[in-house]
Amino acid sequence: MANSVLNIIKIGGNIIDDERQLDSFLEKFSALSGKKILVHGGGKIATRLASELGIEAQMIEGRRVTNEEMLRIVTMVYAGLTNKTIVAKLQNLKCDAVGLTGADGDVIKAIKRPVKDIDYGFVGDLLHDSVNTLAIKKFLEAGFVPVFSAITHNGLGQLLNTNADTIASSLAVSLASLYETSLVYCFEKNGVLRDVTDENSVIPTIKSEEFEHLKESGVVNDGMIPKLQNAFNAINKGVQEVYIGNANNLHLFQQGQFGTCLTLK
Amino acid sequence: MANSVLNIIKIGGNIIDDERQLDSFLEKFSALSGKKILVHGGGKIATRLASELGIEAQMIEGRRVTNEEMLRIVTMVYAGLTNKTIVAKLQNLKCDAVGLTGADGDVIKAIKRPVKDIDYGFVGDLLHDSVNTLAIKKFLEAGFVPVFSAITHNGLGQLLNTNADTIASSLAVSLASLYETSLVYCFEKNGVLRDVTDENSVIPTIKSEEFEHLKESGVVNDGMIPKLQNAFNAINKGVQEVYIGNANNLHLFQQGQFGTCLTLK
Repeated sequence: MANSVLNIIKIGGNIIDDERQLDSFLEKFSALSGKKILVHGGGKIATRLASELGIEAQMIEGRRVTNEEMLRIVTMVYAGLTNKTIVAKLQNLKCDAVGLTGADGDVIKAIKRPVKDIDYGFVGDLLHDSVNTLAIKKFLEAGFVPVFSAITHNGLGQLLNTNADTIASSLAVSLASLYETSLVYCFEKNGVLRDVTDENSVIPTIKSEEFEHLKESGVVNDGMIPKLQNAFNAINKGVQEVYIGNANNLHLFQQGQFGTCLTLK
Repeated sequence: MANSVLNIIKIGGNIIDDERQLDSFLEKFSALSGKKILVHGGGKIATRLASELGIEAQMIEGRRVTNEEMLRIVTMVYAGLTNKTIVAKLQNLKCDAVGLTGADGDVIKAIKRPVKDIDYGFVGDLLHDSVNTLAIKKFLEAGFVPVFSAITHNGLGQLLNTNADTIASSLAVSLASLYETSLVYCFEKNGVLRDVTDENSVIPTIKSEEFEHLKESGVVNDGMIPKLQNAFNAINKGVQEVYIGNANNLHLFQQGQFGTCLTLK
């Protein structure tokens, strides 16, 4: 029997920071049929709260560090305010959302990033076995729609701050063992553009071998390369398709007209 | 077939504010066998955060009001920091906790308290049908241990601040239709005391008719009367037993030696 379909949608802070845009996105998300998961990033609320409390964002060599104070703030904002605001809005749209951190149901167990040159503080990295697929399956099979904030735990009582893109791709790769999984990255642009100045120049499909050509020919720009590389890594590990497109167009996703679709072949 | 047993344990802010006491309590909670639910109150972190942000606790006629700013703060602290800290600690103790607000899985739908003489702001009152027993059953039957913060929603996208004692008793009353439910209120004293100055004078059992005598004879003091009245209300609505005792003694609960046990007869 074919596995059932699971769509994992990731939104970034820019959507969360704009309530009108968030409401419009959540309406489209709630209208998606079938099993689905939402992963949300941070947004500016945490930075603003930190600055109001006189806590400065700690940077080492241009990298953001999560010290104890900052971990408390992102836990409050991402797992509390942002996550529960989204869950309440989805419930109003008859989407039976359940907000989760990695600690809830032990769904994602991370490891504190090892200290080499830089101590990133309470940042959680994911390993190949970080995602508890059976626990997440329980939520999905019960009819719930998991909504993940980017907070994880180490299984030993320590909460950790984890990159939301990484959470989305790890969920997709791991859950590909149970479901026919697609991963959808929402961002500000309509997709991978042939001409970065023209939002209508979306490349509809990129296959793995075409990606190499696009890189060589310089069509895909520098900022886009790591994003696409990560997408193809997920595809090489069993994810069916990865989509990159504009959050405002999510209603076109199940009509096959959303952004750029990356596939193996 | 007899219904299976469900214990609902409520802790207050005093335990949450003291990490050593919280850790010790959670160890005892995680050791309880069978189905269980934890409900936690607030603690001082929200008040402290509000004051750090220059937000004054709004009081009208001595009653605390939850304005929009305060709702954001309690959502961050109760549903974010406090709830997820507890969940991560319980996972470390091999207790498969899932943190919930009323919005998650639509488990508790409240109504914004109607404005009569005082506008309490974003405070949620519970009705007889507020608790979604079937949704909570899904969590319990999946083997999860629900951990409730005192945040609910109105089903229309609005989060609300609700009294944690009320959440605990409403859960107990509603879930009594599915489980043989006991409700355990943890507080600072060892139980209902015959002599308030003597922690060893715990009254082990109070039956409904004895409560009337204790009130009349003045043994039960003023502060205790509403607590006990609420407990007997829950018992009259189907809750098997209500216990009132010291959080530090929770390990004695399943040995039948915890605090004061209130029963119908």
